[in-house]
Amino acid sequence: MITSTDIAILDRDDPLAALRDRFVLPEGVIYLDGNSLGPAPRATREEITAVVEEEWAQDLIASWNKAGWFALPQSLGDRLAPLVGALPGELLVCDGVSANLFKCLHAALALRPDRHVLVAEEAGFPTDLYIASGVGQSHGDLTTRLEGRGGADLESLIDGDVAVVLVNHVDYKTGALRDMHALTRLAHGKGALVIWDLCHSAGVMPIDLAGCGADFAVGCTYKYLNGGPGAPGFLYVASSHHEGLTQPLTGWWSHADPFAFSPDYQAAPGIKAMLTGTQPILSMRALSAALDVYEDVELDVVRAKSTALTDLFVSLIRERCDGHGLTLVGPADARDRGSHVSLSHPDGFPIMQALIAHGAVGDFRAPDILRFGFAPLYIRFCDVEAAVEKLKEIMDQGTWRDPAFTRRSVVT
Amino acid sequence: MITSTDIAILDRDDPLAALRDRFVLPEGVIYLDGNSLGPAPRATREEITAVVEEEWAQDLIASWNKAGWFALPQSLGDRLAPLVGALPGELLVCDGVSANLFKCLHAALALRPDRHVLVAEEAGFPTDLYIASGVGQSHGDLTTRLEGRGGADLESLIDGDVAVVLVNHVDYKTGALRDMHALTRLAHGKGALVIWDLCHSAGVMPIDLAGCGADFAVGCTYKYLNGGPGAPGFLYVASSHHEGLTQPLTGWWSHADPFAFSPDYQAAPGIKAMLTGTQPILSMRALSAALDVYEDVELDVVRAKSTALTDLFVSLIRERCDGHGLTLVGPADARDRGSHVSLSHPDGFPIMQALIAHGAVGDFRAPDILRFGFAPLYIRFCDVEAAVEKLKEIMDQGTWRDPAFTRRSVVT
Repeated sequence: MITSTDIAILDRDDPLAALRDRFVLPEGVIYLDGNSLGPAPRATREEITAVVEEEWAQDLIASWNKAGWFALPQSLGDRLAPLVGALPGELLVCDGVSANLFKCLHAALALRPDRHVLVAEEAGFPTDLYIASGVGQSHGDLTTRLEGRGGADLESLIDGDVAVVLVNHVDYKTGALRDMHALTRLAHGKGALVIWDLCHSAGVMPIDLAGCGADFAVGCTYKYLNGGPGAPGFLYVASSHHEGLTQPLTGWWSHADPFAFSPDYQAAPGIKAMLTGTQPILSMRALSAALDVYEDVELDVVRAKSTALTDLFVSLIRERCDGHGLTLVGPADARDRGSHVSLSHPDGFPIMQALIAHGAVGDFRAPDILRFGFAPLYIRFCDVEAAVEKLKEIMDQGTWRDPAFTRRSVVT
Repeated sequence: MITSTDIAILDRDDPLAALRDRFVLPEGVIYLDGNSLGPAPRATREEITAVVEEEWAQDLIASWNKAGWFALPQSLGDRLAPLVGALPGELLVCDGVSANLFKCLHAALALRPDRHVLVAEEAGFPTDLYIASGVGQSHGDLTTRLEGRGGADLESLIDGDVAVVLVNHVDYKTGALRDMHALTRLAHGKGALVIWDLCHSAGVMPIDLAGCGADFAVGCTYKYLNGGPGAPGFLYVASSHHEGLTQPLTGWWSHADPFAFSPDYQAAPGIKAMLTGTQPILSMRALSAALDVYEDVELDVVRAKSTALTDLFVSLIRERCDGHGLTLVGPADARDRGSHVSLSHPDGFPIMQALIAHGAVGDFRAPDILRFGFAPLYIRFCDVEAAVEKLKEIMDQGTWRDPAFTRRSVVT
């Protein structure tokens, strides 16, 4: 049995404990949804005020150069690169995940012109499959093989016909973590390229894109990276694929000489060929403030706390919420898990609504998943216990049966 | 001869004079580059602070619904719609101009499957042509006819083979204004669709998309609309084209039921089929504050002041800068002009650098164009005179020959 004293010791010895103060966290709320929208870093307000009041209001267009606005996709990309094991010049912060995936899929397919099969996951984040269908509009001969459809596992679907494997590093529903090294090696052995979706892993564990020989990756910055609502996405292209890199969203920021205003398109060399148009500077700079927090952080320490947090949650649910029909979804071993844990329950929706009303915020994913994200930069071990205690009370007392909690609304 | 007294009367009688105070304008600067980046509305800071400190920091993911974040593309679209003559539900604020044009071009070509010719302008904003080339990657049989190549005018290029005409409402270099009614009618007479690029006209004159029967339009919000650096773009699709609307950037925000998380894509009905993914909320909300300024404004009054401003500038240049080799580029008649005026001069680059150093900010466009934007919401008639006086002094004294002004740097 885990006691509150055991948990207090975990917090006392937490090397990341001081980072919690870098974030604004609302009073009386245990926020376990940083895997959907990270909280506001304290520094964000000052950063954005400086952009609005000084750079924009006072320096106006001069700020495109003077304040580095024009170079933000690359400069933020170079700051984010070490968090995912990319080299300088291999990563851009720009656009959104969907647009970036669209570009990477086109670029990857162009590198395998004689192959016409895409492998993906039926249970992957849906926008990945939706974008794949959009790419299919202009690749009439593209066939998609889905893991999970007919029971096939991903590895068995990869053969010599496969151009691209599109795969989530951490599954948004179950939290299951893929072995990036092994899968990339397997795909390369068959001559296929891999695009990694890092939305649910970036910022919460060491990632070694270059070391794995990964080809492409996309990810978002508003979850564990705390860039703010709708913060720009990122994309990675291994430098080995930079020569002749081609994608169809050929806006002026991807031009070799955008200020020549030539009517003819010529792609910029390197990763800049993956840019499209003008970027939303306020949202870009909110991310800049969020990345400052990572300056002082070792990702293996983050990962160690992450697994300790999710393990504690799983143990406490087992010890304190037994008999309430809450079932662990996804890996039992923390080494195979991202930084969120999912439980299933037929009444998952009203249970989560009741829990939120009682001050512990997770989220619900249809049809029956309760998701709990444990972001190591600001979640304490005592928060895990407090959330489990709230859940236990709701289950013990049947609070969630109140009609106030059964009404559906849009959640993200 | 126009006197300073004449000009003082114009300012005294300006019905828009009070609006100037709604913007932050730096001391000692005459800002004639609002056609590139509009200045910061005073209300922006408070709006963004509320988003960061209250909606994000305190309410976290609940704000996707509670604060209307999720619906911003449509709600901002409906607020922008009357400024361009669109009906509610015909306009979205999302992504950037380049991505929006990519989507509109694909959607338009899908409506004319038996035609394979695109007509555009060689002198149009280059990103339009770059995106057209990107769309061409997946439309191998698409031929582009360019106005200006071989001397042809746009109208003569439109025949029964043309699927889409892509045209700038106001030319970014010359300021020339197209007749939207006439060109749309001509194109429709040949069975072609028209996509209007409104980047240099939105917010500065009445536009009547629906009244013209326009098919598609795109535009940006960081120029005359003052949405901030890299503020999101907009796109318009006439409701007559909504049924079966299709585009390839099929991210989850364009799905008929995005929170069902179904692996199969099904486009949302209506304009929402043109969405892609999660939007940058901070930048979206800066635009919201900027649109507040337009609540009190009649666009025909804005247009009247705009033509008076550009006419005054043209007259003063003629009267006071004669003999310096500054040549008016673009229409002599204000009715054929947008809200900026361009002058050519072989030494345009150093002249503009000198002018900026002397406190009047316009911009330079290669090879020899000096651009001056006159945004009627905050530019006074006395500003026009002061800018001309500064230009006259620089030309009279040859200040621009100083080596400090000949060094090139990136400008937008």
